[in-house]
Amino acid sequence: MDLERSLDPEPGPGPDPAPDPEPEPFTHADYAARMAAAAQSAAGAGLAGLLIAPGPDLAHLTGYRPADTERLTLLVLAAGREPVLVVPALEAPDAAEAPGAPALTLRAWTDGKDPYGTTAPLLDRGGRFGVSDNTWALHLLGLQRELPATSYAPLTEVLPMLRAVKDRRELERLAAAAAAADAAYARILEVPFAGRRETDIAADLAALLREHGHSQVDFTVVGSGPNGANPHHEAGGRTIVHGDMVVLDFGGLKHGYGSDISRTVHVGEPGVEEQRVHDIVREAQRAASAAVRPGIACQDVDRAARAVITEFGYGDRFIHRTGHGIGVTTHEPPYMVEGEEQPLVPGMCFSVEPGIYLPGRFGVRIEDIVTVTEDGGRSLNDAPRELAVVG
Amino acid sequence: MDLERSLDPEPGPGPDPAPDPEPEPFTHADYAARMAAAAQSAAGAGLAGLLIAPGPDLAHLTGYRPADTERLTLLVLAAGREPVLVVPALEAPDAAEAPGAPALTLRAWTDGKDPYGTTAPLLDRGGRFGVSDNTWALHLLGLQRELPATSYAPLTEVLPMLRAVKDRRELERLAAAAAAADAAYARILEVPFAGRRETDIAADLAALLREHGHSQVDFTVVGSGPNGANPHHEAGGRTIVHGDMVVLDFGGLKHGYGSDISRTVHVGEPGVEEQRVHDIVREAQRAASAAVRPGIACQDVDRAARAVITEFGYGDRFIHRTGHGIGVTTHEPPYMVEGEEQPLVPGMCFSVEPGIYLPGRFGVRIEDIVTVTEDGGRSLNDAPRELAVVG
Repeated sequence: MDLERSLDPEPGPGPDPAPDPEPEPFTHADYAARMAAAAQSAAGAGLAGLLIAPGPDLAHLTGYRPADTERLTLLVLAAGREPVLVVPALEAPDAAEAPGAPALTLRAWTDGKDPYGTTAPLLDRGGRFGVSDNTWALHLLGLQRELPATSYAPLTEVLPMLRAVKDRRELERLAAAAAAADAAYARILEVPFAGRRETDIAADLAALLREHGHSQVDFTVVGSGPNGANPHHEAGGRTIVHGDMVVLDFGGLKHGYGSDISRTVHVGEPGVEEQRVHDIVREAQRAASAAVRPGIACQDVDRAARAVITEFGYGDRFIHRTGHGIGVTTHEPPYMVEGEEQPLVPGMCFSVEPGIYLPGRFGVRIEDIVTVTEDGGRSLNDAPRELAVVG
Repeated sequence: MDLERSLDPEPGPGPDPAPDPEPEPFTHADYAARMAAAAQSAAGAGLAGLLIAPGPDLAHLTGYRPADTERLTLLVLAAGREPVLVVPALEAPDAAEAPGAPALTLRAWTDGKDPYGTTAPLLDRGGRFGVSDNTWALHLLGLQRELPATSYAPLTEVLPMLRAVKDRRELERLAAAAAAADAAYARILEVPFAGRRETDIAADLAALLREHGHSQVDFTVVGSGPNGANPHHEAGGRTIVHGDMVVLDFGGLKHGYGSDISRTVHVGEPGVEEQRVHDIVREAQRAASAAVRPGIACQDVDRAARAVITEFGYGDRFIHRTGHGIGVTTHEPPYMVEGEEQPLVPGMCFSVEPGIYLPGRFGVRIEDIVTVTEDGGRSLNDAPRELAVVG
């Protein structure tokens, strides 16, 4: 009871409101509307329905966030039918408390029984279903065996935009998460870098994200000196020294929505080449952000960043795509990558994060979360993008 | 460099050795042997090979523990061929540093390219492959499309015992994790329960596990009063009061191997029925543990526990299976459940955790990790099993 109150505070009437109020919660009517829209989108894409596994799709559609295990939990959505959530019997009480539960029917199966047999009668035997990308192969193979005439396609291929376009309340949450990440960045500039280990800075970043309202920290990359040249380096035992470039890339979830920001800092004054590489990445990041507008393809955002970096001779050192979507996860469609022809739509939110990586030497990456507006794009982050000097 | 030293300490010669030394690390030769054995087991099961996704199978076989994402990472094992790890190009540097990396070949694919096309030439087109249960449906569907004549089966169906039998060094790690959980339980009996929330006790348990060497806490169930009657309740805002039964179920990873223990405590002196239900569960747990020996079926362990609880009239209130395996995860095959005819083999490790759940009132669960020996079973936990009275 105490927890419920803390999750759903009444706004205080006094002169000192909480500095970081909980956003207006999503209701079961919101989840009912999301599930109905998803079922309708599926029908429009020629699908018999959608099969949604634990993870971000399920969280988005029902508010239910169970652990993803070998025990089948699966939301079955089909146009014109009531949503059904297949759940292990012993998780049914938890499922029944999910915010979207009043909008669906629970169908429990008991340990030792065949969950695919429980699910099969809910599916159109000859139909084609979209399945959550992260559905376990164990479960897909179980369904394929039970229903050999049914076919399946990854949700992000058949309905890539299921969660991509955010509504007003989702945008508010993403903006709040971005503001918290900006604030954490401002604070990290004040801490000493030289003489401390990457993992120390990473711990500072995690603490700052939590201090600014994050319930979950997903990653705290601190790539100092040559480690910065590996874009997937996280943080290690290397002691940061004067003269290092340091890539910082951190984020997590606040109020259920993601933050993700990268900035590159320099310990002491940067050299000429370091400053130049940073300037190029900054220009690439600016160009790609400026390219964002409804109707252009995702790959055009990637091309805008890549054109700048290639022009300056570092094209082969920009070794990843330019960005990824963000929402109830910190990493989801749409992807800003060559070959992705999906047009941008207002309400989409994604990272714009070009980089240059010089093996054995250093790396630079600058990243903001950008949302597509009616007439362009808007960065949700506004932390300074120049090469900050730290101590 | 500092981190490496802390991960690989030299045992001190002095009279005061570190109380909790790092175990002897697994080498690339160990991983090579595991991969060779797995490929051979696959061939013996009539499979063309194994496809191993990020997660516990990959950690076991290679020591590599990447994040599991929409970017394909897949270990391809086939008898008589060198193991190949398909990895996203930007994760290749991390993969190359995995302890098992010297025993395999990396094949990198670049963002924007088709990873299934990269993988296909490594597979026997007409063959049948075992795939990690938790492989994303996205990836399985990608392979099914690329290689329509190839077939796939869940790894736990075709090679359920791939990770089930632990060797000496794995058993040492599991025993150390169990001892740490025992120590955490001993300490939690000293804290006050009445007047504190379940989440407070859960936080204490997490801190105690870490204090006793756990690098990761997977769950800290605190089910007080009626919450104890939901076996998958975690910990909530309910304030614990005098007279509550409280189910505690907690575990995580220490040195890469799992702990998982349950004990039920009572705040103040228990009533007659509470003590009686606890006695029944304790007898069921004892009977099931005593039943463990090589050659009996997994389901016999479940039956041994269930027979006791049924005899005393609570059969319909024991609403989950009796146990699950444990190793590099806290939850894996083999499962002690009706219908599982897999015979027990020396070296297997699993939980024995019967329970009785009285809706609206309370629950009781007692759980140890048991390993199968040449002539019986041995509990890795030895925390007292009687109903402890807490304050």
